[in-house]
Amino acid sequence: MPLSEFELIERYFRGCGSRREDVIIGVGDDAAVLRCPADAQLAAAVDTLVEGVHFPRDSPAQSIGHRALAVNLSDLAAMGARPSWALLALTLAEAEERWLAEFAAGLGALARAHGVALVGGDTTRGPLSVTITVLGHVPPGRALRRGGGAPGDAVFVSGTPGDAAAGLALEQGRLPACEQAERLRRRFLFPTPRLALGERLRELASACIDVSDGLLSDASKLARASGCGVELMAAALPLSAPLLGAVGTSRARELALLGGDDYELCFTVRPNALERLTSEVPAAEWGYTRIGTLQEQPGARVLGEHGPLEISSSGYDHFAGA
Amino acid sequence: MPLSEFELIERYFRGCGSRREDVIIGVGDDAAVLRCPADAQLAAAVDTLVEGVHFPRDSPAQSIGHRALAVNLSDLAAMGARPSWALLALTLAEAEERWLAEFAAGLGALARAHGVALVGGDTTRGPLSVTITVLGHVPPGRALRRGGGAPGDAVFVSGTPGDAAAGLALEQGRLPACEQAERLRRRFLFPTPRLALGERLRELASACIDVSDGLLSDASKLARASGCGVELMAAALPLSAPLLGAVGTSRARELALLGGDDYELCFTVRPNALERLTSEVPAAEWGYTRIGTLQEQPGARVLGEHGPLEISSSGYDHFAGA
Repeated sequence: MPLSEFELIERYFRGCGSRREDVIIGVGDDAAVLRCPADAQLAAAVDTLVEGVHFPRDSPAQSIGHRALAVNLSDLAAMGARPSWALLALTLAEAEERWLAEFAAGLGALARAHGVALVGGDTTRGPLSVTITVLGHVPPGRALRRGGGAPGDAVFVSGTPGDAAAGLALEQGRLPACEQAERLRRRFLFPTPRLALGERLRELASACIDVSDGLLSDASKLARASGCGVELMAAALPLSAPLLGAVGTSRARELALLGGDDYELCFTVRPNALERLTSEVPAAEWGYTRIGTLQEQPGARVLGEHGPLEISSSGYDHFAGA
Repeated sequence: MPLSEFELIERYFRGCGSRREDVIIGVGDDAAVLRCPADAQLAAAVDTLVEGVHFPRDSPAQSIGHRALAVNLSDLAAMGARPSWALLALTLAEAEERWLAEFAAGLGALARAHGVALVGGDTTRGPLSVTITVLGHVPPGRALRRGGGAPGDAVFVSGTPGDAAAGLALEQGRLPACEQAERLRRRFLFPTPRLALGERLRELASACIDVSDGLLSDASKLARASGCGVELMAAALPLSAPLLGAVGTSRARELALLGGDDYELCFTVRPNALERLTSEVPAAEWGYTRIGTLQEQPGARVLGEHGPLEISSSGYDHFAGA
C-alpha cells in the first residue's frame, strides 16, 4: 500500500516522543521552532546508523529505532547534558507500515523515557539508514569534555562493557547460542544511555567520553584529548556474569576492551575528588568501576596479571584499513 | 590511502564553515556546546540527500556539499530564521581524499557566505548519503508558518522556478545540450537559499514554504495547512529566458509547476499588506512574482489562457506510487 512521504511522517512520527511546552512548532512545517531556557547552553550531537554497518540486516525495527536515539543520547550523557529534542532523518527502501510502526515504537519509548520530543524529520527513499540529531541543555560552562583529564586522574567505566559485542556476535551467529544469550543480545539491541550518571558527573569528573567504538579506543581518545596516556588494568574490568558464562574470562576481557557498541561512559576523576565521587555518586548505586589511571606517557596500555598485554587492534574504526 | 574516521573529520571538516564566538565546543567532542541568544527562539531543520534519489550518481562533490546545506538553509529561510550552526552526517562508500576536499569546499563556501559554523559531524561507511541539521534563530513568536494564509491572500514565488528541473534533465541527458545549458545546470547544482528574503518577509507574509518538491505541490501544502485552496495563473509564472530558450513556453510552465529542486520561497500576503510589501521589499530588487491567490475552495488549480489546466501529477513525492 503506497503511502505518501507526507502521510508517513504524519502518521508515525507526529507525537511519537514526549510532549514539551517548549516546542513552539514541531513536526510538519519547514523547520521546528523551540524555546531554549535562558540559563543553559545548547548541546547538539548527530549520529548515523547504516544497515549492514551499525546493525545486521533484518534487525528488529524496534531495536533500530531505539539504538538510533540511544547512541545520540549517549553523546549528550558524555557531556553531562540533559536532552530535550530530536530530529530524525530516515532513509528506507520502502515504506512498510509494520516496520515503521515498530521503529516508531522503539524510538518513541526511549524518547518518552527521557522527556525528548521529536520535533522534525525527513523521510527519503534509499538504502536503510537512520540519522538522528539530538539537542539538549547544559548549565553554562559546565559541559564535560574529553580533554579535561590530567596525569594521575582515576579512570572509570559505567556498566559492563563487552556485553553488547557478545550480543552482536550472537545476533550474527558468530557465537553459539547459550543460556545467557538473551541478556547479552538485549545489551546490543537496546543499549542504555547513561544520562542520569552524566548529569551527576558534571561537577565531579575531569573528563568524559561515551564508549561506542570500544573501551580501549575511546579511553585512548579521552587520554589523547587530555594530553595524557592511559593505563588500564585487565583484572579490574567489570565483566558481567552472562558475558563470563558465554565466553570465559580471557575472551570477555577482549570484548570489554575492543568490542564496541556499549554506550557506557568512560570518565576520569582527580585524586582529590575521589572521596566526593564515592559519597555523592556511590558506585554500588550508579554501577561504575575504576579500571585504570591517566599517565604522562602518551598511548594506551593494558596491564594483565603478568605484565602489559599485546593489543592487536585499538577498536573499531569505520574507515581504518579501507 | 586509508584514513581513520577521526583523521577524516579532523582534516576536512574542522573549520570548514564560519568561526563563531557562540560555539563553546565545536567538532571533535561527543557533542557541540553552543550559546543561544537570549532574545530568540531556536529553529531546527534536517534534510537528507541520497545519491541516485536527490542527485545523479557521479554528481560533482562540490555541488553535493553545497546542495546538502542549501536545502536545509532553504527550510530556515521559509521560517524567516537566520542560520547559525550545522551538523553533518556523511555516509560514503570510501574515504577518497579528493572527493572529500571538493565536498568540503562546496559545503564550506555556502556556510561561510551565511555565517554558519559546522559544529558537529559523523562519518560512516555506506551508500553515499548526506544528512545535515541546521540550527538558527528567529525572534520569539515571529517564525513564518505554512498555516498562516487565508482566502484572498496573494500568492508569490521568488526566483524563476523550473530552472533547476531543466538543469537536472540536462545533467541526466534527458534534455539535449543547448546554449542555456550551463546556467540551468548551475541552478540545479548550486541552488540559492533565500535567507535574506525570508527574514524580510517575517513581518509581511501571512504564510511561507520553500519550494523543494515542485511549486504546485508546495503551494498546495501551504494552502492545505492554511485551511484554503489555491489558484495559480499559468501566464503569471516567472519563467527565465534560459528556460524558455531551452524548452519553450508550454514545457517551461510544466517544469515551473511540477519540477522541484528550486529552493525558492512560495509565500502569501494579506491584501492589506500588499502595499507595504511593494514599498519595503520591492519585487524588482528582491526578485519575486505574484502567481495566484488563496481561495476558500480546497485544492489546487492552475488557470491557463483558456480555462483550468489539467495537472497530471502534483509534484515529486519520494514514496508516491511505491
